Amino acid sequence: MSMDVTFLGTGSAYPSPHRGASALVLRTEGECWLFDCGEGTQTQLMKSQLRAGRITKVFISHLHGDHLFGLPGLLCTVSLNTNCDPQQTLNCVDIYGPRGLRQFLRVTLGLTGSQLIFPYAVHELEPTTDQSPEEGQLSAEMTAEHGPPHPQEQPGRTISLDVSSDSYLLFEDKKFVVKAFRLFHRIPSFGFCVQEHDRPGRLKTELLKELGLKPGPLYGRLKAGDPVTLESGHVILPSEVLEEAIPGRKVCILGDCSSIVGEGPLMLCSGADLLVHEATLGNEQREKAVDHGHSTPEMAAAVARACCARRLVLYHFSQRYKPCSLQKEGDEDDVSELKRQAEDALQDSGIEVTLAEDFLTLPVPLKR
Amino acid sequence: MSMDVTFLGTGSAYPSPHRGASALVLRTEGECWLFDCGEGTQTQLMKSQLRAGRITKVFISHLHGDHLFGLPGLLCTVSLNTNCDPQQTLNCVDIYGPRGLRQFLRVTLGLTGSQLIFPYAVHELEPTTDQSPEEGQLSAEMTAEHGPPHPQEQPGRTISLDVSSDSYLLFEDKKFVVKAFRLFHRIPSFGFCVQEHDRPGRLKTELLKELGLKPGPLYGRLKAGDPVTLESGHVILPSEVLEEAIPGRKVCILGDCSSIVGEGPLMLCSGADLLVHEATLGNEQREKAVDHGHSTPEMAAAVARACCARRLVLYHFSQRYKPCSLQKEGDEDDVSELKRQAEDALQDSGIEVTLAEDFLTLPVPLKR
Repeated sequence: MSMDVTFLGTGSAYPSPHRGASALVLRTEGECWLFDCGEGTQTQLMKSQLRAGRITKVFISHLHGDHLFGLPGLLCTVSLNTNCDPQQTLNCVDIYGPRGLRQFLRVTLGLTGSQLIFPYAVHELEPTTDQSPEEGQLSAEMTAEHGPPHPQEQPGRTISLDVSSDSYLLFEDKKFVVKAFRLFHRIPSFGFCVQEHDRPGRLKTELLKELGLKPGPLYGRLKAGDPVTLESGHVILPSEVLEEAIPGRKVCILGDCSSIVGEGPLMLCSGADLLVHEATLGNEQREKAVDHGHSTPEMAAAVARACCARRLVLYHFSQRYKPCSLQKEGDEDDVSELKRQAEDALQDSGIEVTLAEDFLTLPVPLKR
Repeated sequence: MSMDVTFLGTGSAYPSPHRGASALVLRTEGECWLFDCGEGTQTQLMKSQLRAGRITKVFISHLHGDHLFGLPGLLCTVSLNTNCDPQQTLNCVDIYGPRGLRQFLRVTLGLTGSQLIFPYAVHELEPTTDQSPEEGQLSAEMTAEHGPPHPQEQPGRTISLDVSSDSYLLFEDKKFVVKAFRLFHRIPSFGFCVQEHDRPGRLKTELLKELGLKPGPLYGRLKAGDPVTLESGHVILPSEVLEEAIPGRKVCILGDCSSIVGEGPLMLCSGADLLVHEATLGNEQREKAVDHGHSTPEMAAAVARACCARRLVLYHFSQRYKPCSLQKEGDEDDVSELKRQAEDALQDSGIEVTLAEDFLTLPVPLKR
């Protein structure tokens, strides 16, 4: 199964002509999951090879405008571009994000008379009080749901921290389990871990032949995890004839943060194939970055090292950093310097560092 | 005084890489008034010659997302780019638009923890029930203001229709009077009339000399409208020595509509130097246009003719119409065809037709 990540916006604070506001898409078999949706994301999608109509799930890391203001418009445009077959029931778009997101969409879609032809549900993550300074926490009054639900709004879940695993279970299906974990920022922020299920190992065909089992449908049953009873009455268990399971891929995407909160982030991100971490400012501006709830390349590298990620992808750069393609000799604020800073911090770790740029697509290859 | 209009977005329904969502700026002496603010307007501003920090007033014609979704982000970015001098009190940004706009901003800015360094006030226009079908009218429950006001929100006015003039008086200052008028659309929509005050006529210098008054400060007093008493005791009234007043300029900008409502629009737009009117679809799709609350070039031309405008500017084109510069031979949906349709309908009227494109700037010259 193919799997890749495409960055639609890699700039911080606001969208600019050089860097869109935060948004990226994880694509598997044509289905797209959108992570964050800053203003202009729908236009960035149109410029990319992706199709907005394929978005089935949305994950919002935190409620700052540069990660959220594009969502109402995106939903409207996806709806306008969806072929409405009255015979067909359209799937619900599931939207995950911090408490307050439901009311945000209810009001923005409601007051603008926006009709969607598909239903949507907002599943809200309940932040803990240690995820931001007190002034960044939304009161119950602010997030209370007033006014009628939007006609296309379906009831969503409220997801609280599972203390035993220090994480939030968003959902699990046949292919993936997706969890969220806590970050520290000016307002509560989350990271997301997409974990593909392990695949069964190869069949030990030599052993199967010795056991008298010829290639055929029974091989498939064993591979699928079912025991097989031979005519002799002997039962073959899958564990006997399968090599070790092949680990599923893991992609972890962190929202804005100056640090992680609790044990959840490192546990969940352990061994990530792709760890996407913000690096708003260079190491030399660490104090300013932390003051604003952000990270430097060195700080991002420390997380990548702590969880033994395979590849660290930096994004969410201050708009002062132009894309490499527009960088001129002698320009200050060279974005490549951010990469060098992360690489310095990751020496001898074997962790590869990549700078995200708008429209960069990174494949996440299957493990073998 | 220089005066011009710049189109930042001329597309309908949603922003695309070819046409931004609705937004235009009226600029006079460096001060910018923004009319509508679809998603991506702030990025379009960055690509233009205009400066976002110069925006002092915002006018929203109606609450559809393609005219509104860019406003919260625009305000945030203007704030980020405003130099905060603690000694200086920043002026309040006045925002005019239909009832519901105040709650829209309160929720979008509030839930996203957006801080503005300047105050803002939303002045809401109270629509009448004949401005849209019943299903397009917002209930009191929807527009009720819940939650605390945003820390930078100042009390705004509620402006009801002045029945005698069939218009809404938004404000009047030394240079301009700005009024709104009613349009019919799927949801209540408004047009705006910016009327510059008339300038005093030229001084009749020959006559003044005959009266024994030599050029000097007294000329200025007469021009400013003050009577002057000569040493002889004779009083010269300005009306005696001034030629006819020179009419101020008038720019009228209509929001989405399939028709006007009442007498206000034609009275206010009478003789407009620039009449900006939507033309979402071509004449051949009139029925579809009207069904969706929109106009064709012929319909826009009829309004321009009825109010004897000098120049009709068409905008808000369906995204199927590419800008002229991207049009290829043989392409369907040639936007120039919309211009021809309006010109056909305006034959012998002397009214000039202009197609708006993103970043087009039209000067509005002083009358002499």
